Amino acid sequence: MERKKNISMAVIKRLPKYHRYLRELLKNDVDRISSKELGEKIGFTASQIRQDLNCFGDFGQQGYGYNVKELLNEISGILGLSKEYKMIIVGAGNIGQAIANYTNFEKLAFNLAGIFDINPKLIGLKIRDVEVIDIDGLVAFLKETPIDIGVICVSKNNAQTVADMMVTNGVKGIWNFAPVDLEVPEEIIVENVHLSESLLTLSCLMNDRTYP
Amino acid sequence: MERKKNISMAVIKRLPKYHRYLRELLKNDVDRISSKELGEKIGFTASQIRQDLNCFGDFGQQGYGYNVKELLNEISGILGLSKEYKMIIVGAGNIGQAIANYTNFEKLAFNLAGIFDINPKLIGLKIRDVEVIDIDGLVAFLKETPIDIGVICVSKNNAQTVADMMVTNGVKGIWNFAPVDLEVPEEIIVENVHLSESLLTLSCLMNDRTYP
Repeated sequence: MERKKNISMAVIKRLPKYHRYLRELLKNDVDRISSKELGEKIGFTASQIRQDLNCFGDFGQQGYGYNVKELLNEISGILGLSKEYKMIIVGAGNIGQAIANYTNFEKLAFNLAGIFDINPKLIGLKIRDVEVIDIDGLVAFLKETPIDIGVICVSKNNAQTVADMMVTNGVKGIWNFAPVDLEVPEEIIVENVHLSESLLTLSCLMNDRTYP
Repeated sequence: MERKKNISMAVIKRLPKYHRYLRELLKNDVDRISSKELGEKIGFTASQIRQDLNCFGDFGQQGYGYNVKELLNEISGILGLSKEYKMIIVGAGNIGQAIANYTNFEKLAFNLAGIFDINPKLIGLKIRDVEVIDIDGLVAFLKETPIDIGVICVSKNNAQTVADMMVTNGVKGIWNFAPVDLEVPEEIIVENVHLSESLLTLSCLMNDRTYP
């Protein structure tokens, strides 16, 4: 399948939403859907949907619409879900535990291989059969078990140190929940979930209704 | 101060990041900063910074740069932080507890007024002096205590019902952690934190290095 290069970040950010809606449609035994119907469900215009999906190849047929299963498969592939990912979580506080407990991720190809913390009270705790290990064992663990994704759920003061340990030991992608921008080599992908920034976006929009 | 209308969502989404960096600068006693220096810190170009901040009025002086305190004050105002917000959390699982425990929010003007859950094991639990209340008491609570922001940390199947209860009882903004798009009246602001979508963005970028 031919894909255009230089896909914008905005399109990439919309793909997981397509993925979510298409899974829902498939679960409800919907075989095919037009860009108009899909747009109404997702809240995008039909033309935006056609434009987005065209970036990745020639989906959909005039007058027929999209084959839901086929489109879902294609988008799953683009999202990297044809592979499996081994994931560790560093920081077993509330956020770390929330992620460890979220079984939906495993359905999507992300397998939790380890959880680490510095707090003696949390070490030994079992979260869905995965035991929280002392952070002192992190490097040895990474040397033994190749890990694709490291989830950082520690405080902002410790996040960079943890990121460095991950990167030095083969982690390729970092999902960062600490409120700090990490410095990593260019080839490492970082996806941030900055909760405070999300909350401030909410208050910003609540405060001035002239914004979009 | 004169503000342009039709500020793009992209600019709004960048403001909390400016806010975070400016707070850090002020904490480190930095009085003024050029758009170039600020850009290097944040990872934006100087011209993007000037363009972003110009949307909201005429900050900064040629040859002097930005007065950090003044700029922080302005951005705080734009982000709605000159007000205080009363917030409730519905769903006292890991995510709900993480948010309740995150003291940084209160420093920013968001005050936790109540936490609700359906699970008898959680009801009565105290998180930072706020007791988890039975969800059956939510409507009565909202009628008595005007709440600005409702945080939804329940499962996707219950999220819409909770949103409806909130909206009917005066909540103006919803911070939604459930993996579902809520239907609300136009005047209600919803900010979503869709964790699965964030993780899929990560795997997408890890999977094909030709993307941005």
